[in-house]
Amino acid sequence: MKAVVIHGARDLRVDPFEDALPPGPGEAKVAVANGGICGSDLHYYLHGGFGAIRVQQPMALGHEVSGVVTALGAGVEGLRVGDKVAVNPSRPCGACAYCLRGQPNQCLDMRFNGSAMRMPHEQGLFRETLTVPVQLLERFDPGADLAHAAMTEPLAVCLHAVRQAGSLVGQTVFVAGCGPIGCLTVAAARLAGATRIVAADISDTPLAIARAMGADETINLATGSDAMEPLKRDKGQVDVGFECSGAAPALRGLLDITRAGGRIVLVGMGGDAPLPLQLTVAKELTLKGTFRFHEEFATAARVISDGRIDLSPLLTGVYEMEQAVAAFDLAADKSRAMKVQIRFSGG
Amino acid sequence: MKAVVIHGARDLRVDPFEDALPPGPGEAKVAVANGGICGSDLHYYLHGGFGAIRVQQPMALGHEVSGVVTALGAGVEGLRVGDKVAVNPSRPCGACAYCLRGQPNQCLDMRFNGSAMRMPHEQGLFRETLTVPVQLLERFDPGADLAHAAMTEPLAVCLHAVRQAGSLVGQTVFVAGCGPIGCLTVAAARLAGATRIVAADISDTPLAIARAMGADETINLATGSDAMEPLKRDKGQVDVGFECSGAAPALRGLLDITRAGGRIVLVGMGGDAPLPLQLTVAKELTLKGTFRFHEEFATAARVISDGRIDLSPLLTGVYEMEQAVAAFDLAADKSRAMKVQIRFSGG
Amino acid sequence: MKAVVIHGARDLRVDPFEDALPPGPGEAKVAVANGGICGSDLHYYLHGGFGAIRVQQPMALGHEVSGVVTALGAGVEGLRVGDKVAVNPSRPCGACAYCLRGQPNQCLDMRFNGSAMRMPHEQGLFRETLTVPVQLLERFDPGADLAHAAMTEPLAVCLHAVRQAGSLVGQTVFVAGCGPIGCLTVAAARLAGATRIVAADISDTPLAIARAMGADETINLATGSDAMEPLKRDKGQVDVGFECSGAAPALRGLLDITRAGGRIVLVGMGGDAPLPLQLTVAKELTLKGTFRFHEEFATAARVISDGRIDLSPLLTGVYEMEQAVAAFDLAADKSRAMKVQIRFSGG
Amino acid sequence: MKAVVIHGARDLRVDPFEDALPPGPGEAKVAVANGGICGSDLHYYLHGGFGAIRVQQPMALGHEVSGVVTALGAGVEGLRVGDKVAVNPSRPCGACAYCLRGQPNQCLDMRFNGSAMRMPHEQGLFRETLTVPVQLLERFDPGADLAHAAMTEPLAVCLHAVRQAGSLVGQTVFVAGCGPIGCLTVAAARLAGATRIVAADISDTPLAIARAMGADETINLATGSDAMEPLKRDKGQVDVGFECSGAAPALRGLLDITRAGGRIVLVGMGGDAPLPLQLTVAKELTLKGTFRFHEEFATAARVISDGRIDLSPLLTGVYEMEQAVAAFDLAADKSRAMKVQIRFSGG
Repeated sequence: MKAVVIHGARDLRVDPFEDALPPGPGEAKVAVANGGICGSDLHYYLHGGFGAIRVQQPMALGHEVSGVVTALGAGVEGLRVGDKVAVNPSRPCGACAYCLRGQPNQCLDMRFNGSAMRMPHEQGLFRETLTVPVQLLERFDPGADLAHAAMTEPLAVCLHAVRQAGSLVGQTVFVAGCGPIGCLTVAAARLAGATRIVAADISDTPLAIARAMGADETINLATGSDAMEPLKRDKGQVDVGFECSGAAPALRGLLDITRAGGRIVLVGMGGDAPLPLQLTVAKELTLKGTFRFHEEFATAARVISDGRIDLSPLLTGVYEMEQAVAAFDLAADKSRAMKVQIRFSGG
Repeated sequence: MKAVVIHGARDLRVDPFEDALPPGPGEAKVAVANGGICGSDLHYYLHGGFGAIRVQQPMALGHEVSGVVTALGAGVEGLRVGDKVAVNPSRPCGACAYCLRGQPNQCLDMRFNGSAMRMPHEQGLFRETLTVPVQLLERFDPGADLAHAAMTEPLAVCLHAVRQAGSLVGQTVFVAGCGPIGCLTVAAARLAGATRIVAADISDTPLAIARAMGADETINLATGSDAMEPLKRDKGQVDVGFECSGAAPALRGLLDITRAGGRIVLVGMGGDAPLPLQLTVAKELTLKGTFRFHEEFATAARVISDGRIDLSPLLTGVYEMEQAVAAFDLAADKSRAMKVQIRFSGG
Repeated sequence: MKAVVIHGARDLRVDPFEDALPPGPGEAKVAVANGGICGSDLHYYLHGGFGAIRVQQPMALGHEVSGVVTALGAGVEGLRVGDKVAVNPSRPCGACAYCLRGQPNQCLDMRFNGSAMRMPHEQGLFRETLTVPVQLLERFDPGADLAHAAMTEPLAVCLHAVRQAGSLVGQTVFVAGCGPIGCLTVAAARLAGATRIVAADISDTPLAIARAMGADETINLATGSDAMEPLKRDKGQVDVGFECSGAAPALRGLLDITRAGGRIVLVGMGGDAPLPLQLTVAKELTLKGTFRFHEEFATAARVISDGRIDLSPLLTGVYEMEQAVAAFDLAADKSRAMKVQIRFSGG
Repeated sequence: MKAVVIHGARDLRVDPFEDALPPGPGEAKVAVANGGICGSDLHYYLHGGFGAIRVQQPMALGHEVSGVVTALGAGVEGLRVGDKVAVNPSRPCGACAYCLRGQPNQCLDMRFNGSAMRMPHEQGLFRETLTVPVQLLERFDPGADLAHAAMTEPLAVCLHAVRQAGSLVGQTVFVAGCGPIGCLTVAAARLAGATRIVAADISDTPLAIARAMGADETINLATGSDAMEPLKRDKGQVDVGFECSGAAPALRGLLDITRAGGRIVLVGMGGDAPLPLQLTVAKELTLKGTFRFHEEFATAARVISDGRIDLSPLLTGVYEMEQAVAAFDLAADKSRAMKVQIRFSGG
């Protein structure tokens, strides 16, 4: 079978890949259907890694995939051949100090598909078939759209992010940065009962999608940043900000518009951003990082399966596996692309 | 009577000042005893202000004072002439949105003694006598030390800071920066049941005082920063960090040693500090600003009056009012001074 | 003009009532449209009060009303004649210890319309016209249904209740008791992102409405209590329970099905319920009372105005003011009635 | 060797018991020194069990013991022969749903020494020698008192209890019931920075001990319950109540004196206590069960080893192993006994 494999910066290939094994007890074999390209996949493609993490051996990319069950091992209950599923790429060890304190997403020995952090690398999910323990699979309704099911992972990230903010009922929420994660954060905040959602970006195209995902108001920071002014009144009008851009000016803006005692959830990865200590101290702001997910994977699958969120506006296009490079090139063009997916044999 | 009045940078004078009025109903007249010099007082003295806040008219400094009641207005209960008291410099309006949501220290119309934020400036407490509503006074035991009572305000700041971290029982606490606020934070964390307290500074003198105030371990970051290494194990060994220096490298160090999901309380004012987004996000750290105090003023007074904290190690010296300039010069010399106080007529 | 006035148990009259004054500065005059009958109104009607609170003088009932603005006092902005509004019956003093700590719904000097707690009683809102400060009015879209707008108050109660539970994203929620408050709690939990909502009652009629309001599953405790068994697995499968019945067996059931460390929000008023200490202690359960609302009134109005919740299933019937006694008799018949409203001159 | 073994109600024997094995890798052999008699030990002695849990086979009692290391298995670091230790009786499975969500004290497969919940029963620690994994041992300073070290377990219970209440700094705390757990809760609340601690009981003897352990005020509810009246002002003056008696009237009293929005931590096991729903709802009280401990065992050991709490006032007496029945009879007499211990061969 084949997989989408990174060999180094700008060296992405559709390679032969070892066949998935027949499923053992408690396992299922899955024909991969759709695989979404994520920001970290793009970093491997464009730069061969990020920070200290570099691709050192060929590695299949991908950690956002849906599929269809094709075979079941012994003793599996609650799953049948033909079921549509999403595959959880996160496998904490279950034994380290973080796992045992209820923070499995901080596992000291995490295996996460398509990550070059470990050596040998943990292979990704952009392959035609997979065999995995069934606990890693979330089942969808037969009528579910496999492209939407493949967004379970990024939605799980955003559900984990909104949970960092406590109840959003009655809250004014501001989402800075409307890439896929920003737009899914808008949807997650809507789902969580936020009363007023303002989304901001430096381009109109993603803002239109953010609106479609549930934003009440949008602000183009490149052309209409005076729309931020009323939000600064009385030390700030925003109860909860979500920083989804990784950009320093976006964080700075959030610090100005978040009310004293308010909360800013940091979702977007990025470099060093200047933090004005005097402002942060005097307004008693909270900044809270959020990373990946755990039980939210199941929650995201159920939300999608139940149709509580319409993910259609996010999908820019779906490319066949053989066109993986073209898919990555489109995904890298932020002016045109939101979420780009690759279709595998199960799709 | 006289007061210690700032006229501009390096222009501090002991000036005649309008006499305190006789106490009206619900008021008390206080002979000021001891007044502690705080960092903001020093900023006015050394630089004429900080940031956008500048001294624009002569202003008595000071907001950390104790005294003795000399007269009572009509209808006052629970206070007698001769009582030792600390004076609360914070007077929120009680009517703005923040006051009504339980955040009076964020009052939109705050009056805080010795602050040039408003125009006309809110005069400070470094005066020989004061007349104030009795709600602003906290009473001490007759045997209390008036120099210690004058530390009620900075201790209240630190009690407010430790409350931002929830229960400290069982927690490993790290205090970065051992000036008066850092040392009082050590004491406050000890009072709050922290199990292990590590204090750090770039000089040995304040570290010795931090140890006297309750630190279990101390680290001189200038000479022994390898002592930080074991604290970085498993993503960090510190549960709660207190940043009391306002210095960017101190914050950076805290980000490295605080465990995933841990909390850093920002106490020290400062300029822009680089915040590494990737690290903060991946470790899901919380940064929380803390500013001034409210009900903690009464708590601090009771803690001092009951002798639960020994404040003696903090006191560098006490100068007579006429030597106010010398007192400020000493306070400005961090290599020699921790807390410097001025003695007024009530002392 | 006229009002619906209680004189004692079973003595409800449509009485002449003093006309509303012309609106002064900052006030608006409102023609009342719809008024919902609440459980406390019913207690006054059926029993002349509840507990120690008795009707001691004629009192207009009602605290759930919508209306239309008919006149505006000087200086009012953001509101126009003809606007549809809901009227907030809650007027905390803004000056007591609870108001100043951000708990205005616990005000020590609360004025709440249609309550016999104070003497003289605070008159209710079941009157043809009202003149009130505009801060007590929430404006609705012109297309809003005035019957739905009159449910702002009970929805606010339920939004306050769900906020006691923190984020409901990913949570399994159980609502015990499906009267109007139970059904609105179902809707509020759905709005707040609860992942799985199970509603229970002892009658099928309210369960059908609970399902229409968003419950995923329903359990008739009178006929199908074995449906509770799977929820008891592993110390309990429910993350958050809402006790909306005030009945002791309902609380007992929640204690059995709520997971260790889970939370039960107490919404329903009632008498003494046996609390099994050993079970509550060993499972480390949290029970949390919730009472009335504050800022949630504005949130509820916006949710209804925006059409985020469909309140139609709740409305049993609307009676003209002159038929108020028939409306109360229907409302008292739980087998037939969910929410019964009275239509006033503005409707 | 010998152990203190329960055979049924009132049938306690000092029996021969299988020798402890030589320590394997990662294990240590301990000569037990002091063993404290706990309420559950007494239930087994007096009634043969509690609730549905009955002694069905001979079982060594005890789960509060200190000892001295006598031999070490291979590969043990950080522990030496002769070290004084406390033995943790709690061994969660580390693999169930609760263990993996950070609630190991709620483990579905818990092994807890001296408990008849499982069959065969989990043998207790009242034996002359033990061999256990070293992770179950907490080391004390050589100067530590082994009688105090044997109170690590009950202190851990109380530290876990106070952590349920968040920061106690500035809080008024009320402890109802001054048996060993109540008195240790007083000490734990003091350690955690509570500002004012009031302790209550129905007898003067334990109140004197509560005062020695840190209570600021005490109330004898049998003779001086009017002292409760001032605590009821303004809906209640207590921020956090600890119910340590398991008695219904004590809970009722706490509901009256706890302020609106305040918190009552349920520590004491007991039967059904009437919970007045109207009061609990209207005051928006929180009741929170607390059970056993986890990481607090290490914290308690450190607190005792460091001498931060003086446990001397709690110790009623120490009996030699052969006098175990006399020790239990004394412990059962609440009018005379607080904590009674048995001395084993290591003591």
